[in-house]
Amino acid sequence: MSLEKSPLAPATFPTLPEITGAVPHVSRARYKEWDRCDLTFVAMDEGTAVAGVTTRSLCPSPEVEWCREALKGGTARALVVNAGNANAFTGNRGRAAVEAIAEKAAAHCGCAPTEVFIASTGVIGVPLPIDKAEAGLEAAFTAPEASWEDAANAIGTTDTFAKGATASAVVDGKTVQISGIVKGSGMIAPDMATMLGFIFTDAAAQPTFLQEMLVAAVARTFNCITVDSDTSTSDTVLVFATGKAGNTPLGSFDDPGADAFAAALDNVCGELAHLVVRDGEGASKFIEISVGGAQSDESARKIALSIANSPLVKTAIAGEDANWGRVVMAVGKAGEPADRDRLSIRFGATQVAKDGLAVEGYDEAPVAVHLKGQEIEIGVDLGLGDGRATVWTCDLTHGYISINADYRT
Amino acid sequence: MSLEKSPLAPATFPTLPEITGAVPHVSRARYKEWDRCDLTFVAMDEGTAVAGVTTRSLCPSPEVEWCREALKGGTARALVVNAGNANAFTGNRGRAAVEAIAEKAAAHCGCAPTEVFIASTGVIGVPLPIDKAEAGLEAAFTAPEASWEDAANAIGTTDTFAKGATASAVVDGKTVQISGIVKGSGMIAPDMATMLGFIFTDAAAQPTFLQEMLVAAVARTFNCITVDSDTSTSDTVLVFATGKAGNTPLGSFDDPGADAFAAALDNVCGELAHLVVRDGEGASKFIEISVGGAQSDESARKIALSIANSPLVKTAIAGEDANWGRVVMAVGKAGEPADRDRLSIRFGATQVAKDGLAVEGYDEAPVAVHLKGQEIEIGVDLGLGDGRATVWTCDLTHGYISINADYRT
Repeated sequence: MSLEKSPLAPATFPTLPEITGAVPHVSRARYKEWDRCDLTFVAMDEGTAVAGVTTRSLCPSPEVEWCREALKGGTARALVVNAGNANAFTGNRGRAAVEAIAEKAAAHCGCAPTEVFIASTGVIGVPLPIDKAEAGLEAAFTAPEASWEDAANAIGTTDTFAKGATASAVVDGKTVQISGIVKGSGMIAPDMATMLGFIFTDAAAQPTFLQEMLVAAVARTFNCITVDSDTSTSDTVLVFATGKAGNTPLGSFDDPGADAFAAALDNVCGELAHLVVRDGEGASKFIEISVGGAQSDESARKIALSIANSPLVKTAIAGEDANWGRVVMAVGKAGEPADRDRLSIRFGATQVAKDGLAVEGYDEAPVAVHLKGQEIEIGVDLGLGDGRATVWTCDLTHGYISINADYRT
Repeated sequence: MSLEKSPLAPATFPTLPEITGAVPHVSRARYKEWDRCDLTFVAMDEGTAVAGVTTRSLCPSPEVEWCREALKGGTARALVVNAGNANAFTGNRGRAAVEAIAEKAAAHCGCAPTEVFIASTGVIGVPLPIDKAEAGLEAAFTAPEASWEDAANAIGTTDTFAKGATASAVVDGKTVQISGIVKGSGMIAPDMATMLGFIFTDAAAQPTFLQEMLVAAVARTFNCITVDSDTSTSDTVLVFATGKAGNTPLGSFDDPGADAFAAALDNVCGELAHLVVRDGEGASKFIEISVGGAQSDESARKIALSIANSPLVKTAIAGEDANWGRVVMAVGKAGEPADRDRLSIRFGATQVAKDGLAVEGYDEAPVAVHLKGQEIEIGVDLGLGDGRATVWTCDLTHGYISINADYRT
């Protein structure tokens, strides 16, 4: 199946700076019947710190289990990503494939297998073929250095464009770079590290603090997006810090530059998360949903996600239909504190409902104009408290059905 | 918009017996620009007991609030159902319309307004026009007796066929009849009384016991179906017992025939709930999902609904694709106790995965044949305990998108 590029894709892949100490390579493992690079190998120098978050699915892939264990060590020397086969729900054979990859990469890098991080994405239930993985890895070892755009392409499956983001910060007098790549388009739901995302920085940071910053960033970014409410068995976001920028390793928010670094990391995570939504399967609109006036931030987030995951809201946006009644419905079903008679709703800059009914003399014309655009904003005020949250999603179109009714064929 | 009849529709509307003491009438209130009956009025004799369950949405319609209050009285003399306008989220004007309808019907029947039950379905956010409601009601008062099929048609909106079911039981030496009609096709989700359903019986029953039986039946039927995970602001199921069969009023499960009556009520609720799924917007397959081996029945139900509400599972079925990995995904995201390595999955009669991986020598051929049919069964065994649940849903097709992207236009 060949998919057209999402209409919400950025014009170009951004220029990602080199991250000293992290070198990507790609190769053809041919996990599927395709002629494209589908194995990514990133070699990292000694002294690279690592942090990561993984799916909360109770049926995780062996790769996710491997990463969870390996993260305890806090250091990384290699990342291997397989595209086209998720290797999830494959029992001992799946676990054996992960171990074989870790051992082979460790032997090449001269490190412990637990310093090798592995992620796989694609169809569930088919063991990753060890022979293909080993041959692909061997080819990657000898391949010339790839670009980050090559790597971003190689980790994709139903993605229609390569996704990357970058930011920099001044830490301890040194300018540090943060660059990330991400894949994901369907089976995207919040409440965990969603999809596969890999972020590299030349900053020096202690693993525990790197983890603390990543968890905070993910909560505001990857965990606030949804394409289809379906949560992958393989979701993983990893951040690698090579330390080559030469700053004193960041260990807490009291360290100079820690706030700037955390903000830059937030930016990269946010951009990557939005790019996933922009490549949501079948997406024709990018939708930002802001909920305020809730009893708590968590309550606001649940209500925002109830709206973002509602098929009826998503199809209304696809149809450019200002059917705000469906937003009311989604607020009502969220199960969070809400008072119908205090509820206000906004589409774009236009208030459409206030205090439990349509605004006096409501004019649908500016809303109709807003809905014809590609960037849609829905605002909800519950009028109860100070809790707020913003989430991002896309519309639900015929494209989603077409992509997913014949994914394996 | 004119919709083709669902391919899952039964060949004919069933023969519903007369329910002595309950007489339906229909009329044209013309709530929308259509030439069809859209107001239903059922007159009931004195002594009719009533029980009901309503949406758990926190943004309920004024009709729902009215019914909740009226149910406290336990007796009914009239039911009024408006189709084409849900009257939800309409503030004081919506409440005024409900009160006007109750007063007019009460005056006609010579009863208290609180003995009039009212439900409305259709677009949200537009106050129900009182003049149209009153004129329609007036027309219904003088209209000849309608059939239950007429009434089932008159309460529908995006429904593509009239839905009714009937059962009988012997209570206290008397044969009693139970007949019900239901409407619903989209905005159908579980965990409450879903959609509009109205059940009539000539049995005599005390309102509190009628309520107890209804709540139990709804939990196993209406609350176990989902079309699109979206929960209406107007969901209501009411059961009216005219008492004309002459049995001693049922007051508890110790009474002779109470078990038989409850079983018959279950049957009617179950058939009506399945008919709603068979008219799920865009449905081409009827899907039964059975989960066993869970830690509790409630845990099994949540996992079953996680599968039933997964867009990826529903599109796979639409594509007749035996993509059982998506079932694993949906189990994993449910947040309920599950152990990947004990999980077994069945499509139709064929075991496809067992103990955390594909079965040895899995042959997809019989599964492919099963998926080509209209009646799909998915079985999941968690291998943890004795909890079990069955839910029903339909597939997710282009039809759902087409219907909902231009519902208001």
